[in-house]
Amino acid sequence: MNVIVGQSGGPTAVINSSLAGVFESAVSRGADHVYGMCNGISGFLEDRYVDMTEILKDPIDIELLKRTPSSYLGSCRYKLPDPEAKDSEAVYSAIMKKLNNLDIGCFFYIGGNDSMDTIAKLSRYGEMTGSKIRFIGVPKTIDNDLVVTDHTPGYGSAAKYIGVVMKEIIRDATVYGTNYVTIVEIMGRNAGWLTAAASLAKGSDCEGVDMICLPEVPFDVDRFIEKVRRIQENKKSIVIAVSEGVKLADGRYVCELSDDVHAVDAFGHKALTGTARFLANTIAKTLNTKTRCIELSTLQRCAGHLTSRTDITEAYQVGGAAVKAAFEGNTGQMVALKRISNSPYQCTTELHPVSEIANLEKKIPLEWISDDHTQMKPEFIDYAFPLIQAELTPIFVGGLSHHVHL
Amino acid sequence: MNVIVGQSGGPTAVINSSLAGVFESAVSRGADHVYGMCNGISGFLEDRYVDMTEILKDPIDIELLKRTPSSYLGSCRYKLPDPEAKDSEAVYSAIMKKLNNLDIGCFFYIGGNDSMDTIAKLSRYGEMTGSKIRFIGVPKTIDNDLVVTDHTPGYGSAAKYIGVVMKEIIRDATVYGTNYVTIVEIMGRNAGWLTAAASLAKGSDCEGVDMICLPEVPFDVDRFIEKVRRIQENKKSIVIAVSEGVKLADGRYVCELSDDVHAVDAFGHKALTGTARFLANTIAKTLNTKTRCIELSTLQRCAGHLTSRTDITEAYQVGGAAVKAAFEGNTGQMVALKRISNSPYQCTTELHPVSEIANLEKKIPLEWISDDHTQMKPEFIDYAFPLIQAELTPIFVGGLSHHVHL
Repeated sequence: MNVIVGQSGGPTAVINSSLAGVFESAVSRGADHVYGMCNGISGFLEDRYVDMTEILKDPIDIELLKRTPSSYLGSCRYKLPDPEAKDSEAVYSAIMKKLNNLDIGCFFYIGGNDSMDTIAKLSRYGEMTGSKIRFIGVPKTIDNDLVVTDHTPGYGSAAKYIGVVMKEIIRDATVYGTNYVTIVEIMGRNAGWLTAAASLAKGSDCEGVDMICLPEVPFDVDRFIEKVRRIQENKKSIVIAVSEGVKLADGRYVCELSDDVHAVDAFGHKALTGTARFLANTIAKTLNTKTRCIELSTLQRCAGHLTSRTDITEAYQVGGAAVKAAFEGNTGQMVALKRISNSPYQCTTELHPVSEIANLEKKIPLEWISDDHTQMKPEFIDYAFPLIQAELTPIFVGGLSHHVHL
Repeated sequence: MNVIVGQSGGPTAVINSSLAGVFESAVSRGADHVYGMCNGISGFLEDRYVDMTEILKDPIDIELLKRTPSSYLGSCRYKLPDPEAKDSEAVYSAIMKKLNNLDIGCFFYIGGNDSMDTIAKLSRYGEMTGSKIRFIGVPKTIDNDLVVTDHTPGYGSAAKYIGVVMKEIIRDATVYGTNYVTIVEIMGRNAGWLTAAASLAKGSDCEGVDMICLPEVPFDVDRFIEKVRRIQENKKSIVIAVSEGVKLADGRYVCELSDDVHAVDAFGHKALTGTARFLANTIAKTLNTKTRCIELSTLQRCAGHLTSRTDITEAYQVGGAAVKAAFEGNTGQMVALKRISNSPYQCTTELHPVSEIANLEKKIPLEWISDDHTQMKPEFIDYAFPLIQAELTPIFVGGLSHHVHL
């Protein structure tokens, strides 16, 4: 019996650690071949896949795989039609035929809520047609916006990266002792988990960020500028973390106030960019201060050189738990992380029907946000702090972190 | 006898390692007090300084100082008048009086070519007035554009950071297997040393960047777009490293073609920003491809979490060598790095009159740039490779790299 695994959606720094977990667990449980879909279900439909059992023969490759950011197998943003819809039969029967030709018993898909949509539909189709193939979802997203799971693999490393670079940006921004407003734009369309991680920078050696702007609460440009003006009366260098997805009370994204073009992807999501630049320009025009905008951009999701060991270990574990679940007969499920205790931090895995997860978004509880909407309460720190603990050093070759790639 | 030290110009990840080198060497050579100017000569003129001997008492603080990015003492961009100019007497006699009040025998200034201008003028004034104070420059700049010295402390770490993140960006940009042009904007006003470091990404595990655009050679927008079009015929995801300072044949910066406002600093340098965005927008309008622009921004100069041990060690050494030089009676000199051999890499220090260095810029030799102006020749790799070797791990506390600050 063979298994197949794919990666979908945006890359993370630890998505390949989940791939390593699936691969090693499937091999140790007796899978003859572990196939990898190239560019997810989209590439598989074009017969693009590899036999990972043939490629990853040397144990050093597995270690490098765990430390290689971005999706080793490639990714896609491909939305399957509803299996119940007319005209959907062609694509599903094509997928099933290809899976049966490869003697696939278990199908794993590592991704976020769009990817869980794929697992939900495939398992539904499988059930409708009496297929024996088991479909299991492996959670992954820096956005941390999957419901049911305590957190998502990928988030801890991105949060650690954001905490570390915010401290560095704060140190950098204070050197001249002049009026200076730095606005750092952080990913997160509708959920502010990543932006909230900027609050982790505060500590005995760092004054922390002066404001955090989340998509969970409405954004008011005038109130924002007035707040900056007031803070700057007592503090020359201000550093602000702002989510790319902050929205006005009328639902428009702040970045839509700028002149940039905004493309739309296959799932209907608008490309968000330019929030920090818009706010920095607006402040520069209104207040007597220098401004700088910094977009963390892809660096926050691909910084394999700065990962949380807690995160990379859990990413591996959810991969392994997915294989265990499938081999024990489950289908249509996603592996979720369940926090047992916070001090000491302990976390285990459990299964949840993927239909309860697909296409839903978990946002930051409003009671974790300060009343004036600009800082995180201790509840958030307690939640996020364990997820960024410990490091997994890259393997440096010739001065640079070394990777594997197809 | 006491000494005083200041930091000036843009921050780097290792400028505080030079400060640690000055501090520890001065203490071990018998300085009673090591004073630190807050915000360089500008803050010193306002009597803002600290007694580092009182602050840095615990050896762990020195270790943290070496690993703390940005200027511990704060920085400034302050241009002294010519000591020969009319009306310059007031500022120089104010400085000298303050120095004499503190019983300063040696004055160290850690910075780039603007800072060496300060050392040149102070030592000239000292000579004119028969002062016994010795003025020594300690080189520092991520830009690597100081003449005489083989390279500058700060460059190796910035180059290593750029090499590492370019590899990560290349991995990230290839995941979807779709047409995609990523343009990464890297610092460097007139010298392309940092942008050239993107060439280090190429190796057995990485295909490297597809184009490197340097300020040393004239930039032609149409030729650039045609080159992108040609490369994309065979390769869907293209990653391009472009210097913020690329210029047209007529001398205008490419970023001036965009609509952004461009401020000017005290030394008359225009703020450069928007080069990558302009090029990405131009490509998106012209070619059928998705584009993304990434500005490495301040992260490339403040990434204390990813430094070159070679660099951080040399930064410490030039600080120590400056103290040795001053205590042996030299003044008006800068410590330079002299490469003895490349394989094995060996480097020592020597002194050069600061008047030969101030206000000059060292650019990349044109013979190190490929004939089509888009890649680096092996001569550059041979030069830069030793400078990024080995790592100095941050001290992580609570999951984040720990710093010291005033």
